[in-house]
Amino acid sequence: MTYNPSNIFAKIIAGEIPSHKVFEDDTALVMMDIFPQSRGHTLIIPKTASRNLLDADPATLSALMPLVQRIANAAKAAFSADGVRVAQFNEAPAGQTVFHLHFHVIPVFEGVPLGAHGGGQADNAELAEHAKAIAAHL
Amino acid sequence: MTYNPSNIFAKIIAGEIPSHKVFEDDTALVMMDIFPQSRGHTLIIPKTASRNLLDADPATLSALMPLVQRIANAAKAAFSADGVRVAQFNEAPAGQTVFHLHFHVIPVFEGVPLGAHGGGQADNAELAEHAKAIAAHL
Repeated sequence: MTYNPSNIFAKIIAGEIPSHKVFEDDTALVMMDIFPQSRGHTLIIPKTASRNLLDADPATLSALMPLVQRIANAAKAAFSADGVRVAQFNEAPAGQTVFHLHFHVIPVFEGVPLGAHGGGQADNAELAEHAKAIAAHL
Repeated sequence: MTYNPSNIFAKIIAGEIPSHKVFEDDTALVMMDIFPQSRGHTLIIPKTASRNLLDADPATLSALMPLVQRIANAAKAAFSADGVRVAQFNEAPAGQTVFHLHFHVIPVFEGVPLGAHGGGQADNAELAEHAKAIAAHL
């Protein structure tokens, strides 16, 4: 399994494709998932190239997790969520659809079942608002 | 939300309750999930007390993730899995049932749907074998 640099997240990192950005620094980019499973579904993406967790530099993972935590807390606060799921998929049978390492942060609301990933593309104006709401809690 | 030290993982870490152990060092314990969602479903548990990801020491997360990666690769290899899901649940509405931070590593097999967590307790002899199989790939 190899890394294909023409994946959509590499293009977003390179600034070739727009995204609903929550946060960015030299090492990582955080953006809204455009096929959200819940209100506030966010993706945390290291800029270093790896296909997924299996081939990542362990140092990249160590550096990324405190940011995953910050986003989980910010998303929970921004939407007054009752819980948060963190998920990370490796290879297509496990649900991976973009082959650049990313972590999902999915706010969960009591009594509201999670949608299917890819169930439908969210409204752009709404996603832009959600990105701002999470960023305000960082 | 606070940490309750009488949770079952704290008792396993303290050696008061047995488990199907894959790996243990000063900082973490890795064991088979006794209610597996798939063959090889493994839990990675830091020994430092935190309720979940939301209140964890960021340094604990940074130290733990390379081990999560090692277990993901070992479980994939041990069972010739087609993919791996990594999942981490925060608070009951998100699916958390034991309130001590843990990461799930769930091997995925093409065409085999994941079981429901808590769908049924696995056979002890089988779990012991699975723990050995993963440990052999570390």
